[in-house]
This record gives sequence, C-alpha cells and structure tokens, in this order.
Amino acid sequence: MEKEISQAVIRRMPRYYRYLNELLEAGVERISSNELSARMHVTASQIRQDLNNFGGFGQQGYGYNVQYLHDEIGNILGLNTTHNVIVIGVGNLGQAIANYMNFEKFGFRIVGLFDVNPALEGKEIRGIPVKMLEELPEFAKENRIDIAALTIPKENAETTAVMLASLGVHAIWNFAHVDLDNVDNMIVENVHLSDSLMRLSYSIANGNDN
Amino acid sequence: MEKEISQAVIRRMPRYYRYLNELLEAGVERISSNELSARMHVTASQIRQDLNNFGGFGQQGYGYNVQYLHDEIGNILGLNTTHNVIVIGVGNLGQAIANYMNFEKFGFRIVGLFDVNPALEGKEIRGIPVKMLEELPEFAKENRIDIAALTIPKENAETTAVMLASLGVHAIWNFAHVDLDNVDNMIVENVHLSDSLMRLSYSIANGNDN
Repeated sequence: MEKEISQAVIRRMPRYYRYLNELLEAGVERISSNELSARMHVTASQIRQDLNNFGGFGQQGYGYNVQYLHDEIGNILGLNTTHNVIVIGVGNLGQAIANYMNFEKFGFRIVGLFDVNPALEGKEIRGIPVKMLEELPEFAKENRIDIAALTIPKENAETTAVMLASLGVHAIWNFAHVDLDNVDNMIVENVHLSDSLMRLSYSIANGNDN
Repeated sequence: MEKEISQAVIRRMPRYYRYLNELLEAGVERISSNELSARMHVTASQIRQDLNNFGGFGQQGYGYNVQYLHDEIGNILGLNTTHNVIVIGVGNLGQAIANYMNFEKFGFRIVGLFDVNPALEGKEIRGIPVKMLEELPEFAKENRIDIAALTIPKENAETTAVMLASLGVHAIWNFAHVDLDNVDNMIVENVHLSDSLMRLSYSIANGNDN
C-alpha cells in the first residue's frame, strides 16, 4: 500500500513527525486536527487527507492521540529501527552533522567518521575517532552501515558512491553538489544547499513572503 | 507572468541552472534537449514543458544555446544581482556555510558573521571577523543585508527572525529546526536536515533505490 503514496505526501510526513514530537515533549496527549492545523499552517482537511493515505489515525470528535500518531508516522518513515550512519568528509559540514545530537533522538547513530586528510586522523568527535578512508572496507566488514553521509567535493562523490555500493552500503545522504543518479542499487537523498539558496533568491525576486 | 509558475517547476530550476553551469565550465556551447535530458535523467518533454513556462528558449532542431539558457534561468532565479548574506550562528554549520566558495560563484557574498559566544568574537573566516549579535543593529544600518542564514538553536530562531525583520532584513535561509511561519513580511527558505534524513529513512524502508 505504501508504494502508492505520492511524493508530496511523503515530503510532508517528516514535518508532521517533527510537530508531533514537539507536542509530546510539551506533554500534550491529544490534539484536534484543527489545533494541529493552526500550529502547522496547513488546512485541517489537508492533514486528514494526508493521514488517510495511511489509513487515518483520528476519531471524529476525539482528535488525535499524539503518542499513537507520532509512533505510527514514525513507523511509516522507518524510524522504528536504528540506523547506523558514517560520515565521509570531516570538514566543517561533516563535523556539524557528527555533532548534531538531534539526529540521535530519531534513531540515527553516528558509528564512523572518515576522511582522506591525514591531519584529521584520530581526531575525536563525540568520542568517535576519524579514520582514513582506506580503512573503510575493513570497517564495513565489521560494522553494519545503513547510511553514508557524503560531505566531500563533487569530483570524488561518484567514485565514493560506487565504492560504498561495493561494500554493501546502499543509502547515501548526499551533500556533494552533484546528483548520483548513475549509481545502481543506491538510495540517494540529496541536500543541495546551493539549490536551496537559489530558491530563496527566486522568492526574493518574486516577493513570496509570509 | 512568473507568479503563475508552479512550485514544482521552480524546484527544478536550480538543478537546470547547476547542470548548465557545469556545461559552460566544460566549454559546451550548444545542447539538444535530448542530450540535456540524458544528463539530467529528466525526459526531454519535461525539460521543454518546464522551459515553456518562461517562454521557451530553444529552437527546434538547433537545441539550446547553453550560455543564453544559463543566463535566462539565472535571471528567472534572481541571480542577476549580488546578494549580501550574513550568517548568524558560527558553529560548525555556520562555518561550513561561510567557507563554501561555490555560493560566491552564484552571487551570494558573505558580508558578516554573528554569534552570541564571546569565545568566537574576532575569529576570522575568510577574512571576515565574527561579531557579537548585539552589534547587528549597528551593522545593519551601515550595510545592505539581503539574506540572513540562521544556524542557531530553534529556541532562539523566532526572536532572531523578528529582530531581523525590525532591522529591515526580509529573507532568511533557515537551518534552525523550526518553521518560521509566524514572522510577517519574511521570506523563509527552510533547510530542515532532520526532515531530509527521515525521507531517506522512508526510502530505505520502502526500497526506493536508483
């Protein structure tokens, strides 16, 4: 069933999850679709429609049970399991990712840091030492790696992606400024920061403010 | 006319621009929509449709003039002007943004760095010293600020956004893990990294590989 869900709905799910997580942390147990709608600046009807894609989770007049809805959306997003993450490229961006505690809350656990710069070898971030990239094949034999975050120059991204595939790593969180469409059997989620900045520029040029 | 363009088309424009920029750098002067299509993994018909939203830029049988198409898409994206950018929050992520040379190529110029941590005061990144956030009002009087990149904890994001609006800064590139929908007259482009990681998790759970 989940295969039929549109990309637009999927794009909105993490935002729902984020808001529900905040409600949970604030001790809110139950919320009406109108209240959730007001908080999220999405129509109540949109919320109901989105959730109906997964069978719907509310009862008319009772609103949503926050914990239940949170957990169910978590399941949909595959957050009911821990993901082991390595970071390849330990510059400022790689370090920012390795340091960001919030990802851990959602089950993403940094298990390894790799770079090609010998000056970084052994440097520890949150107790994890930076290893040289040539050590990755050995590391991959001994550790389950679910996701590789790539924060490396675009020139090296495809080669690295191919190497990862050969080591049995099949998901890349890609910050390199290149699409990795050519790597077979690889799940790629791109974070193209310059694209985002250009969309901001477009909005400025066209006055799309709040 | 540009007001009528759908969000989906706008989302694809930076990617076109990025590819055309690479073609330019590789010295390619002319490209058919079929070649562009093969490179970008988008159908030629999609490319033609997208570009027709802006009047179309190709001639049947002649393909696209790369420089012309690049420049026209740049104009659409508002890249025909320089944007002065400040970074608020000079941790790893803020430093990564300040250091990233590629943004400059597209006309985004870092003009100021601000933080609340006195330990960072005066530290220079690419020749720009970190100032304390309390100096921002004075700085804003003397410098044009087009965009503020917010790489600060979510707890402080809305207050900072309101302050920015009061100083005449009306565009935020938001990395804080909170939406800033409540700030009036503010253009906001969100980069929610945890949302992106959750979409990757969804793709892993549902086997959406290349």
